[in-house]
Amino acid sequence: MRQLLLAAAAVSLVLPVHAPLLADEAAPSPGQIVDAAPADDWIAIAPSDLLVMDLAADAIGNPRRVVIQLMPAPFSQGWIDNIRKLAAAHWWDGTSVNRVQDNYVVQWGDATEEKALPEGLATVPERKYEAPLEDDLQAALRAKLKSEEAELLAASRQPRDKTIRAIQWAIPRDPFAEETIVFRGWPIAVDRQDQSAWPVHCYAMVGVGRNLSPDTGTGAELYTVIGHAPRHLDRNIALVGRVISGIEHLSSLPRGTGALGFYEDAAQRVPIVSVRLASELTGGDRPHFEHLSTESDSFARYADARANRRDPFFIRPAGGADICNVPVPVRPVAAE
Amino acid sequence: MRQLLLAAAAVSLVLPVHAPLLADEAAPSPGQIVDAAPADDWIAIAPSDLLVMDLAADAIGNPRRVVIQLMPAPFSQGWIDNIRKLAAAHWWDGTSVNRVQDNYVVQWGDATEEKALPEGLATVPERKYEAPLEDDLQAALRAKLKSEEAELLAASRQPRDKTIRAIQWAIPRDPFAEETIVFRGWPIAVDRQDQSAWPVHCYAMVGVGRNLSPDTGTGAELYTVIGHAPRHLDRNIALVGRVISGIEHLSSLPRGTGALGFYEDAAQRVPIVSVRLASELTGGDRPHFEHLSTESDSFARYADARANRRDPFFIRPAGGADICNVPVPVRPVAAE
Repeated sequence: MRQLLLAAAAVSLVLPVHAPLLADEAAPSPGQIVDAAPADDWIAIAPSDLLVMDLAADAIGNPRRVVIQLMPAPFSQGWIDNIRKLAAAHWWDGTSVNRVQDNYVVQWGDATEEKALPEGLATVPERKYEAPLEDDLQAALRAKLKSEEAELLAASRQPRDKTIRAIQWAIPRDPFAEETIVFRGWPIAVDRQDQSAWPVHCYAMVGVGRNLSPDTGTGAELYTVIGHAPRHLDRNIALVGRVISGIEHLSSLPRGTGALGFYEDAAQRVPIVSVRLASELTGGDRPHFEHLSTESDSFARYADARANRRDPFFIRPAGGADICNVPVPVRPVAAE
Repeated sequence: MRQLLLAAAAVSLVLPVHAPLLADEAAPSPGQIVDAAPADDWIAIAPSDLLVMDLAADAIGNPRRVVIQLMPAPFSQGWIDNIRKLAAAHWWDGTSVNRVQDNYVVQWGDATEEKALPEGLATVPERKYEAPLEDDLQAALRAKLKSEEAELLAASRQPRDKTIRAIQWAIPRDPFAEETIVFRGWPIAVDRQDQSAWPVHCYAMVGVGRNLSPDTGTGAELYTVIGHAPRHLDRNIALVGRVISGIEHLSSLPRGTGALGFYEDAAQRVPIVSVRLASELTGGDRPHFEHLSTESDSFARYADARANRRDPFFIRPAGGADICNVPVPVRPVAAE
């Protein structure tokens, strides 16, 4: 039993925060909510939105495939267009993973810095780190606020105990932005006064390395987050997607001993065999994934369960969560 | 230059938020502030507060030492007393690292679950997950609030631009607790109504595995955080310290493929050669560390610089940080 220990979260039982607490009432865990989500709540990820990176096999011959989902409009599309061109040109083939910094990032690209880039890559301006706060996102924020107000109102009519009081913390309190929301599958921060929105540096998000401003990077040099969310990078670097499969092939690499975690010895670099859009792969080699619609009722219940864990392991539900503690469920699916 | 990329934070130049912004004014980076801190701002960590875990050498013979700093009173002292007894009994010698779950925890202890525990370990009650909100912590919170109010007031007298406005977010906005503060070297959350305080699950913090409530664990089974802060565990498990050296020997281990990241094959476990309090080690084998006083002016300036990065790489200071984004500086020192 000691083996079960702390992550019994996997079998957590959750009561909706607005329901009376009945001792025998058992609600599904976050994972069970996801497993029970109807097929209609899942959204297939287009092959042209999947970037497939095959690293050289590991020391005992196991393959190492990393799959990245690219972000949708209106976010970072200039860089993502470049990335599609780089993949189509097979530009990353023969490059390598060059940097692994503990509790920060893994970074890959051309270690020589001399490899010619394909023609036609765009130079994207810094203002594109943010996107306009569009009507549909504003509507989603209003709906979220309304739901939170309803929960607070319901709570105020309940006996005041620790569990109920805790949900006041479910009101968004983000240290880095006015507000955050998981919107159309992605963690997004918002500034209403600026009428702008931008993606958030959560674990496994993928960004574009760059030189000093005004350089914004092309997309040829990429990194992913392998530690506590480095939110100070938000709006300072372009985010273009997230690793949805195989992050362990990057996060468990030996840490680099050079400055910023760069490998000091070229032999430490991990060779990249190929990077392809899934749309270029055929048959069994093409991966298929889908993500839970973040606009579905299933996701709302999942997010609530993440913020309010009441399975037998937990004696005190947190009553809240930061945006990076509610990762969007993604799953592989068989080819059609 | 592309090598420099995103983590140029290492050379960040920071302006105090309350100072006018002069284009040519260069303030030190977080790292430079730490490096320049006077000797009096550093506090030696007692050898009896250092737990030294030596893993078996890695595949190419490199030693793997992990050093953990134990928490001071009033936090978790019952479990920490047990841990000192377990170390004195050399109980962990011959046990192993058994679980590595990506973006979550690494866990170690007796995989057989049959090894007898030493006599005299205490059973610590759940209420000890929290400590009373003592006067000195209350005073620190008041001072922090006063400093934040002063910053806001200063900001209100400045030309209103994006940089200045951003500091409003430096006001504590924590999704999990009423308030957080780095106090006497540790990340602490607070509930004033409950008059309680508790340590926070940041990256590298070390906690005590347990079975279902009311079990609270003995301290024989330990874990450390290797991903985004799992704050939902706060007040649900005892935190007893943090890894201050060698976390990479744990965070870069292969991920377990069993449920919850447990290794499925016993051969995957990493042997623990020995765990000792540093006070039991002698001569060159005894490590020495010190941490920056979190009550020092140096720490205040470091924390401000972490939340407001203005080195040439950053075009937009965050204007805030969560508690886990302000890690307490720790450094090794030569023996006296």
